[in-house]
Amino acid sequence: MKVGIVMGSKSDYKVVERAEKILDGFGVDYETRIISAHRTPAAAEEFSKTAEEKDIEVIIAAAGKAAHLAGVLAAYTPIPVIGLPIKSSTLDGLDSLLSIVQMPKGVPVATVAIDGAENSAILATQILSVKYSQLREAIITYKQNMEREVARDDADFQEGLK
Amino acid sequence: MKVGIVMGSKSDYKVVERAEKILDGFGVDYETRIISAHRTPAAAEEFSKTAEEKDIEVIIAAAGKAAHLAGVLAAYTPIPVIGLPIKSSTLDGLDSLLSIVQMPKGVPVATVAIDGAENSAILATQILSVKYSQLREAIITYKQNMEREVARDDADFQEGLK
Amino acid sequence: MKVGIVMGSKSDYKVVERAEKILDGFGVDYETRIISAHRTPAAAEEFSKTAEEKDIEVIIAAAGKAAHLAGVLAAYTPIPVIGLPIKSSTLDGLDSLLSIVQMPKGVPVATVAIDGAENSAILATQILSVKYSQLREAIITYKQNMEREVARDDADFQEGLK
Amino acid sequence: MKVGIVMGSKSDYKVVERAEKILDGFGVDYETRIISAHRTPAAAEEFSKTAEEKDIEVIIAAAGKAAHLAGVLAAYTPIPVIGLPIKSSTLDGLDSLLSIVQMPKGVPVATVAIDGAENSAILATQILSVKYSQLREAIITYKQNMEREVARDDADFQEGLK
Amino acid sequence: MKVGIVMGSKSDYKVVERAEKILDGFGVDYETRIISAHRTPAAAEEFSKTAEEKDIEVIIAAAGKAAHLAGVLAAYTPIPVIGLPIKSSTLDGLDSLLSIVQMPKGVPVATVAIDGAENSAILATQILSVKYSQLREAIITYKQNMEREVARDDADFQEGLK
Amino acid sequence: MKVGIVMGSKSDYKVVERAEKILDGFGVDYETRIISAHRTPAAAEEFSKTAEEKDIEVIIAAAGKAAHLAGVLAAYTPIPVIGLPIKSSTLDGLDSLLSIVQMPKGVPVATVAIDGAENSAILATQILSVKYSQLREAIITYKQNMEREVARDDADFQEGLK
Amino acid sequence: MKVGIVMGSKSDYKVVERAEKILDGFGVDYETRIISAHRTPAAAEEFSKTAEEKDIEVIIAAAGKAAHLAGVLAAYTPIPVIGLPIKSSTLDGLDSLLSIVQMPKGVPVATVAIDGAENSAILATQILSVKYSQLREAIITYKQNMEREVARDDADFQEGLK
Amino acid sequence: MKVGIVMGSKSDYKVVERAEKILDGFGVDYETRIISAHRTPAAAEEFSKTAEEKDIEVIIAAAGKAAHLAGVLAAYTPIPVIGLPIKSSTLDGLDSLLSIVQMPKGVPVATVAIDGAENSAILATQILSVKYSQLREAIITYKQNMEREVARDDADFQEGLK
Repeated sequence: MKVGIVMGSKSDYKVVERAEKILDGFGVDYETRIISAHRTPAAAEEFSKTAEEKDIEVIIAAAGKAAHLAGVLAAYTPIPVIGLPIKSSTLDGLDSLLSIVQMPKGVPVATVAIDGAENSAILATQILSVKYSQLREAIITYKQNMEREVARDDADFQEGLK
Repeated sequence: MKVGIVMGSKSDYKVVERAEKILDGFGVDYETRIISAHRTPAAAEEFSKTAEEKDIEVIIAAAGKAAHLAGVLAAYTPIPVIGLPIKSSTLDGLDSLLSIVQMPKGVPVATVAIDGAENSAILATQILSVKYSQLREAIITYKQNMEREVARDDADFQEGLK
Repeated sequence: MKVGIVMGSKSDYKVVERAEKILDGFGVDYETRIISAHRTPAAAEEFSKTAEEKDIEVIIAAAGKAAHLAGVLAAYTPIPVIGLPIKSSTLDGLDSLLSIVQMPKGVPVATVAIDGAENSAILATQILSVKYSQLREAIITYKQNMEREVARDDADFQEGLK
Repeated sequence: MKVGIVMGSKSDYKVVERAEKILDGFGVDYETRIISAHRTPAAAEEFSKTAEEKDIEVIIAAAGKAAHLAGVLAAYTPIPVIGLPIKSSTLDGLDSLLSIVQMPKGVPVATVAIDGAENSAILATQILSVKYSQLREAIITYKQNMEREVARDDADFQEGLK
Repeated sequence: MKVGIVMGSKSDYKVVERAEKILDGFGVDYETRIISAHRTPAAAEEFSKTAEEKDIEVIIAAAGKAAHLAGVLAAYTPIPVIGLPIKSSTLDGLDSLLSIVQMPKGVPVATVAIDGAENSAILATQILSVKYSQLREAIITYKQNMEREVARDDADFQEGLK
Repeated sequence: MKVGIVMGSKSDYKVVERAEKILDGFGVDYETRIISAHRTPAAAEEFSKTAEEKDIEVIIAAAGKAAHLAGVLAAYTPIPVIGLPIKSSTLDGLDSLLSIVQMPKGVPVATVAIDGAENSAILATQILSVKYSQLREAIITYKQNMEREVARDDADFQEGLK
Repeated sequence: MKVGIVMGSKSDYKVVERAEKILDGFGVDYETRIISAHRTPAAAEEFSKTAEEKDIEVIIAAAGKAAHLAGVLAAYTPIPVIGLPIKSSTLDGLDSLLSIVQMPKGVPVATVAIDGAENSAILATQILSVKYSQLREAIITYKQNMEREVARDDADFQEGLK
Repeated sequence: MKVGIVMGSKSDYKVVERAEKILDGFGVDYETRIISAHRTPAAAEEFSKTAEEKDIEVIIAAAGKAAHLAGVLAAYTPIPVIGLPIKSSTLDGLDSLLSIVQMPKGVPVATVAIDGAENSAILATQILSVKYSQLREAIITYKQNMEREVARDDADFQEGLK
């Protein structure tokens, strides 16, 4: 089980890195690439067309500004593409978000929150968990841990350990 | 293979219906429910917690305004949840979109375009296709048909058949 | 007379703390909890369903991003819920504001300004003052002090004591 | 138990009327006035200052565009003021919403959704229910009916009675 | 010839100060006050109603967030009111701008750019110049100096004196 | 006493007409022109430069989209320029509003609400009233009538004459 | 001299048609195609890569929603690409505009107003006029005619021929 | 072959400088001026009217806030004008962007991203390349280098040289 992570520029890695950490935690393999929809369109096409052969089952595409990367990858492959909008202009990330989420009929991109790298990886894992039951278990455990962590924060808070 | 479709109000059906048609086309089974995160929270919890038992493998949640439905369902289940923002206030759907896509760390919702019902269903099918290879084929065919349809539009246009 | 304060994450406390100070000033008791609508949904339900029993008469719910907490609590309780949008994404708080204020028909949330913690507490006190006449007096005094403070600022300013 | 409803212009009544119907349903008395913060400021001040004497316990203020009415009333009275933003410019109601909800520290307005007249009335009733236990019961019943209604919509939908 | 400058909070002075400097430059007298529409409504009313008697011919009202000050002053006086939106929330000043500029029919506020203190003072002087011909001359000179200054910047730039 | 009204396109007249009616009511003379900042820049310059000679004391400039007209006129004249943003694109008038109100330091435009033609004329009259005392009286009367009209609306409403 | 016009969907033709009329007026040849960046990516690549060979010197790309067409074409060709954002979602065209104009460093798209088809064609002609002097003359004439038309509108208006 | 670069204020140079560097790289001559549409309107008119005589073939106009510069220059010249919106107010550059891109029918401005100085220069070069074939080659080379650079970033990344 493998996720393809693509970012439009190396500067996106400071956000994308958090997605890798989540996938590491779930024991999901991934391949991270720097490919630009506009500067290396051939590489984008190539990556997307060969993703299935390389056993990539879900793609995470991270990009900022007029973020076409996720849509361009989704055009060339039948596998699900997750779009991760990156704030990288003066506009608070709204440009990236709208460029990714407002895809026209026929070619969806599964969009997560602006700079929401962790969620892109959790979603990728949830998608893989449709097929791999051990990931389903891992997600359930992750949610339980998260619940426990918030409960502990609450308990600590009650005890004045702010 | 089954998709659970949940809409927050019966008035959302005029949009959601288009998702059902797509799933029909792919031969994907679905169960459509009217459940409100705010007016029937117990039903939302119940639906989400029992989704796996009922063999639902992906959920599509359609809601407008402060659209909490997708997030609330995602809180209770490990299976992937697709959020479909519905324009149903004076605000062009931006309220629904932000309420669905900007989920906090830990609980992603795979968001599609405002009123993008077809894409929610195509995405659901793509997610199922990770497991069911016949759906992968169906998606590939769908994309080819779509390509052919646009090419035909273009050809017709060239021949003056506007 | 008691207010239930709930925040979605411990990081919200730096804002929420200001609400506590206001309630302290009015002599209103409160119980502050860290409960996430998405990460601890059962705790949210439990808190909201038992609020009345615990003599909580008003709830303040503080959350950021796709801020569902106030709406989720309001779904389970008949007591008034005040929503406090927190800026915690790249989007200036507009996502939190719209996620809280644009509630669908039937389940209102009394929304205050983004990061407007003091106002959430003053509003809670005003709501309690419908029942507790001493709080009505306290609010009147608070408004008089506020008026006096601005008048003093103005007077100081006139005297060149900027 | 009485609610003061104030609207900035008679044209707002087509929205405000829905708030009256909700209050009728709850058996809550109300007095509806047309008072403009900008065109009849003296009437606004007078209304707000004498609200308590007239046994008004909550105020609903409905206004559009640069909607100052709720804030102006809140300045003059200690009782809770609910702000109902009305869409009445070219701007989708965002101007009204921000003019009402973004109140500065010290003078909160409990804001509901744009054109959310029903919710303004339900919130008023919830606030009164802090004092009047029969209204608490009425709210609980209202929520149960609402839940039943959605459940019935869902059941009808399942039976193909769309 | 005198301008009344009113700001909603002493924290607005860091912006408002720049308006004073411009008026100093034009030799226009002014009186600067700290008056809040919401915290000192009586002072606002009093200031506005007595402005004419005090020979104030134009008012500049500076406020942030749900900025009602300019509108409230304009309600009580026939003299022209200039609104100066201040950025003082998380929202980039759009809340102040819309709260000031979107005034309903009958009570205009002459709005300038967010944090545009200098322009509020220049506009006040232009308004006074309708009556006082020496100010008309001063404005013409100001515009010429401004033109010269930009021309000098350009000339310096051409000479490489960046 | 004369106002110069300039609109960027004849299609703006359906809004601008309402400004003329207000000026008629005040007995203020006006000259209405169709001049485009972009299509007839020489006419714009000519109009603005000769406005004073033609005894124009205030200018109202109405334009939509990237509405440069008010700013361009303000560049060439020392007399006060009122900007009236017209909604004439797909964007709700926000483009016009920001293009008019966000003027850089040195050249203010007194901006009124989007499509707020009446207010542009009332503001022009208020500005003229700094010089012409009869207009001051007229404004006072206008405000009283407006107050009376709202009071009558309220009285009618109370008597059930909705 | 030839312009390549590409639209993402045949439904865009009702806007694009206006661009063709302008090019007809200038005597500029064009080839109009229906090509979708997402549904026919190979056709987009092919069109863009062969544009030069087909003597296309400027491209106009019209698309709505997450409008990637212009950017995708610009990725594959050195010739200038004009982006024409089409309003085709619930969002007033802001999604199209930002998706087109906010291109990352290295691959510009010359963006015109939302639904601004005429301007896309005029801009294309201006770009061609850098090379073809007869088009420079045509543009000058066009501007003169436009000026004359507005002047005539103004003259007619003065004569009361509204 | 020469580009005219105009900026509204010397403070814009920190952005504009990046455009100069790109033009230097392409060996395109340029003349950079500081001219304000509002403070030096005569210089703007003069510059624009004489641009052709001075062999300027494309203009880049950089401005912030209510950015009228590009439109004003485009009004006076038939040569293509590129608009470069600068973020220089509290509003994230949206005011500049809309003021530049939303030009009315007849006078287009080729708009690039907010603060997108490099792209304004690349676009200028692409426009010149319609006429000058050596620039066409240079653009092709630039695109190839850009492609190579991203590919190298990707390769470095794969080797762990982050």
